[in-house]
Amino acid sequence: MTTTAPTTPLPAPEDVRRVACVGAGVIGGGWVAHFLARGYDVTAWDPAPDVAQKLRRLVDAAWPALTLLGLAGGASPDRLTVTATLEQAVGEAEFVQESAPEKLDLKRDLLARIDAAAPPGVVIASSTSGYPMTDMQTTAADPSRLVVGHPFNPPYLIPLVEVVGGERTDAAAVAWASRFYEVAGKSVITMDREVPGFIANRLQEALWREALHMVANGEATVRDIDASITEGPGLRWAVMGPMLTFALAGGEGGMAHMLDHFGPSLKSPWTRLQAPELDRELYEAVVAGCDEAADGRSIADLVAERDRGVIDVLRATGRLDATSDPKGDPR
Amino acid sequence: MTTTAPTTPLPAPEDVRRVACVGAGVIGGGWVAHFLARGYDVTAWDPAPDVAQKLRRLVDAAWPALTLLGLAGGASPDRLTVTATLEQAVGEAEFVQESAPEKLDLKRDLLARIDAAAPPGVVIASSTSGYPMTDMQTTAADPSRLVVGHPFNPPYLIPLVEVVGGERTDAAAVAWASRFYEVAGKSVITMDREVPGFIANRLQEALWREALHMVANGEATVRDIDASITEGPGLRWAVMGPMLTFALAGGEGGMAHMLDHFGPSLKSPWTRLQAPELDRELYEAVVAGCDEAADGRSIADLVAERDRGVIDVLRATGRLDATSDPKGDPR
Repeated sequence: MTTTAPTTPLPAPEDVRRVACVGAGVIGGGWVAHFLARGYDVTAWDPAPDVAQKLRRLVDAAWPALTLLGLAGGASPDRLTVTATLEQAVGEAEFVQESAPEKLDLKRDLLARIDAAAPPGVVIASSTSGYPMTDMQTTAADPSRLVVGHPFNPPYLIPLVEVVGGERTDAAAVAWASRFYEVAGKSVITMDREVPGFIANRLQEALWREALHMVANGEATVRDIDASITEGPGLRWAVMGPMLTFALAGGEGGMAHMLDHFGPSLKSPWTRLQAPELDRELYEAVVAGCDEAADGRSIADLVAERDRGVIDVLRATGRLDATSDPKGDPR
Repeated sequence: MTTTAPTTPLPAPEDVRRVACVGAGVIGGGWVAHFLARGYDVTAWDPAPDVAQKLRRLVDAAWPALTLLGLAGGASPDRLTVTATLEQAVGEAEFVQESAPEKLDLKRDLLARIDAAAPPGVVIASSTSGYPMTDMQTTAADPSRLVVGHPFNPPYLIPLVEVVGGERTDAAAVAWASRFYEVAGKSVITMDREVPGFIANRLQEALWREALHMVANGEATVRDIDASITEGPGLRWAVMGPMLTFALAGGEGGMAHMLDHFGPSLKSPWTRLQAPELDRELYEAVVAGCDEAADGRSIADLVAERDRGVIDVLRATGRLDATSDPKGDPR
């Protein structure tokens, strides 16, 4: 009986120079722009006939933003090579990002083809916005190096990448991908289990479905829905997540007081989402999780931090006029 | 048979000088701070024994932020008068904001008492985060002047106020309140019907419930949930609402392409929220609503606008270092 040792991903995340991007839609093209801006050599392939022009247009549109964000030394749009075949694109890659359309069979097939053509030990990540890797890695010869690396649109601007493996993924490949994305300037959440839709998509999907219900019932217009977020909770969420934000609604009593006060309204018919049972265990998990996330900061600290942040966001998004930009801003 | 003519709210929204705030919790105190900063004389009452100190603490904590936002001429924390009785607080008010705890009987009773003591023609608004005014105005002698004016925490910083009347509210009172809040520096959404939870609360409650499900099932930590928003969709939502944000996920095809591509995933088990039927009518309403909200801006315009905004938000929230603050920023 022989077993193959788990592949050690190669090269080290810090040593990657050549990245391959498969798929040139909004997400694939966004990844191309991101990796170019971070100074990588990028090869790209897409079955579309006009892919070179399309990618050039996407990169050109993103480049001013990327320049403002700060380019890595040597970064250039000219370090992109569009190849005629998938195999050419990934054949010498040190990391592969797949961003094909969201169709399970297509992804399965493509990941198997990438796996067959990419050098041994190279990690291959899928941008899928919801499929578990377990369902996508079924036909690849080496499923151990296949991970999900789920970005947010636009990938060159929104830091978050959610990283998770499938049942047949090697834990070392998940760890390697998380580290690589960090080196490449992303903000990484590594998940220890597969949840369809991962984390942020489940959250924004819940909001999105509720919004669709409101539109379907004529309860609010698209414009009202968008304004209700950008003028309301959205201003906070750029600065502090929904959990800590709600903790602040509890005043000096924090999340516990908030749950005492608003917990019962989980039962009121405010959304079409079935509410979880707010039992003792969930109550305590939420309170403890907020304490942990606060990391020693008091409610007053968090209030001050949020306030400064929201003001800055208001100013940054042009909702404060120049006269309210005082010299006395301590930051 | 005699009928009383509908009361014309008094004075004009632009002429209000004296505002009464009933309730001195996080929301009531936040309203006090907001109205003081906008230069109003504020009277406040709360049954708590230490209400004067409590309000002073809340106002002092908010004042640095309000100073950064820009104070109205003559604005001062000293223009707050804490009264011994509810009747003293509202007896000479030109507008009343009620922010009592979220208990229906309590709100009913309090609104009836405020109505009995406030001058005729003065509009009375409730900060309720979810009760329809129809359910709260049952015992007041003059229900026609009772409206919902639902703020977001903190009311001195988040612009949004949702305004809606109950079945017995005079339409003139709703219009007056919307105009008054605008004069007082708020961003107003006036709703033409009662929806429990209004708009933004339904949206953020959907997200909140999904987050609670994730915590309950051990799928994500509070910290992960918050990071998934602040590093991901939250950065966009401070700049552009969820509908237009998703429209941009459709690339140059906008919302229609997005629905073509991702519509089927409404049926996938990404959230515990039951999905609406994406029928032709909803499809067209969403697409048309996005077109309307775009107001002539092309997808490329919106992309450029979002990119500039998100960069500014990144910089504003300290996620860009000083070296990436170029002189060439066109704004």
